[in-house]
Amino acid sequence: MLEDKNQAKTSLENLGEFGLIEHLTKDLKITQKSTVKGIGDDAAILDFTDNKVVISADLLVEGVHFDLAYMPLKHLGYKAVVANVSDICAMNATPTQITVSLAVSNRFPLEALEELYAGIKLAAEIYKVDIVGGDTTSSQKGLLISITAIGEAKLNDIVYRNGAKPNDLLVVTGDLGAAYMGLQVLEREKQVFQVNPNNQPDLEAYTYLIERQLKPEARKDIKPILEKLEIKPTSMIDISDGLSSEILHLCKQSRVGCNLYEEKIPADPQLINVCEEFNIDITTVALNGGEDYELLFTIKMDDFDKIKGNPNFTVIGHITEAKEGIHLITRENTKIPLKARGWNALEE
Amino acid sequence: MLEDKNQAKTSLENLGEFGLIEHLTKDLKITQKSTVKGIGDDAAILDFTDNKVVISADLLVEGVHFDLAYMPLKHLGYKAVVANVSDICAMNATPTQITVSLAVSNRFPLEALEELYAGIKLAAEIYKVDIVGGDTTSSQKGLLISITAIGEAKLNDIVYRNGAKPNDLLVVTGDLGAAYMGLQVLEREKQVFQVNPNNQPDLEAYTYLIERQLKPEARKDIKPILEKLEIKPTSMIDISDGLSSEILHLCKQSRVGCNLYEEKIPADPQLINVCEEFNIDITTVALNGGEDYELLFTIKMDDFDKIKGNPNFTVIGHITEAKEGIHLITRENTKIPLKARGWNALEE
Repeated sequence: MLEDKNQAKTSLENLGEFGLIEHLTKDLKITQKSTVKGIGDDAAILDFTDNKVVISADLLVEGVHFDLAYMPLKHLGYKAVVANVSDICAMNATPTQITVSLAVSNRFPLEALEELYAGIKLAAEIYKVDIVGGDTTSSQKGLLISITAIGEAKLNDIVYRNGAKPNDLLVVTGDLGAAYMGLQVLEREKQVFQVNPNNQPDLEAYTYLIERQLKPEARKDIKPILEKLEIKPTSMIDISDGLSSEILHLCKQSRVGCNLYEEKIPADPQLINVCEEFNIDITTVALNGGEDYELLFTIKMDDFDKIKGNPNFTVIGHITEAKEGIHLITRENTKIPLKARGWNALEE
Repeated sequence: MLEDKNQAKTSLENLGEFGLIEHLTKDLKITQKSTVKGIGDDAAILDFTDNKVVISADLLVEGVHFDLAYMPLKHLGYKAVVANVSDICAMNATPTQITVSLAVSNRFPLEALEELYAGIKLAAEIYKVDIVGGDTTSSQKGLLISITAIGEAKLNDIVYRNGAKPNDLLVVTGDLGAAYMGLQVLEREKQVFQVNPNNQPDLEAYTYLIERQLKPEARKDIKPILEKLEIKPTSMIDISDGLSSEILHLCKQSRVGCNLYEEKIPADPQLINVCEEFNIDITTVALNGGEDYELLFTIKMDDFDKIKGNPNFTVIGHITEAKEGIHLITRENTKIPLKARGWNALEE
């Protein structure tokens, strides 16, 4: 998993800015009908005649959002796209294009950027988004990735954060907390590696958690699944900063309260084992871990039968009047106010 | 012009990521009909029913693209927006929205970001673009600004880089080279300041050049002017990296050659004086200086009468067959191949 640092290296200075962009983007294919013109002019041209345009921007900074000691560059590129695509999915929209801007210090050889871009391209291929623009420049220190994701949706299909109503059910896709514990495992291994570089870690017991951290997936599949079930959520948000933080956002913007049931929060069996091993409370991890890129949404109570037993969804609570507040109902049936302690990009 | 460093300072850590975004964007107004939903959800929603969407991304890095020793933060914010708006103008499109992502090290107090954002907001107001999204995070070192600009145009109005044909006229807006010489003046003053901080520079003779460097304007006015004149350019590009570099791009993508006439290149009288003072060749500056944010375009020969004598435009050359190459015809009537020596973001 740790990178081989002894590869052939090509200095970025030899290529220059335009050379680098051309090199990295030379075999990009356009797959979206809505992409009229991609990379190669002052701007890209997109055509969304009947649909609305959905747009979201995100910034990933080395040393703040990722650590290249255990994050292979290809995975990083993949994850950067996923994080942005996830924001489009969280509007119940379909991602269609991205722009990718990179700032890199000269310590990165061309081969490193090729690796990064390979991950970006792979994600673009898998999520069927066209790379239509961007910028590449040098940085004073480290690597910085700025992605803008563009998507489309019929106005009537778009789901905002502010539509939740009392008695709606609170639903989450997938399971929570695994990405955070994957990071804890990787950080532990990094420390072991620093003490003894010859130690070969056995990560078999952590594969799912590590994959959730290094190669998360955005839930582009949820929109078509919901359409098939004839459900339009009343509100939706993606869980990138931890469940509690996102519930608070959703409730604040919808001006409602919420009861979240601890026993309902979905966790993978591997997460349960590893939380025991690390002696960390699993609910704390699920509530505050972040980086799961699952979707959190609310549906009308009447739609419950449509999702009952569906393995993609777990009902974890219900919406209340604002005055009732936002609470976690513990396994012991005590009611405690939910607090945001999600990962904060400005805390170091 | 140099900043007062002794202001009240509020640490960014106290605000947190969401607090900072809310603080900086709290009084943003939506002015574009096409902005359905701006900041405040996972993504913004835009509506361009009858028009195509034009999109461009750009990255500005401290120490690479700007130096805060002589670039006041408000000007920097303004210029960052201008540079992106210029890319949309260069498609003969109308800029409508931007997303703004910032990465800042903790050495910046909140007041510094407020200054920066004040410049961003001022430019957004003047160019009538809505700020519809973005991201704010910490950086390991310095300040980084990533802007994505969005615009709209009828498909038939859009002008690409690749449409120039032999015998077309090569036209430029405004004058060239001033932004570069403004930078030279500022760098000289920075050095003087470092030797003697009490020295008050007299910059009266350089006001135009310094303004072109610190507060450039994008040519959003050109599209309506050309429409009124009933001219549709055959190709267009913005001059951010220097005239010669952009001519080469335009000719390469259009697969044509070009003759550029040295005596026609428009220069401001102040530029002429300062080039003499610095003992720098004015043509070299105009060809390679960059950051002028003027537009370079080609028109059919038949349209010449429509722009003749128009103070916005200067015909500086004409397009030839590709096999004739790309040349500068000097004042002495010698023909020398044009080379790109424009500012290169990857050279430090």
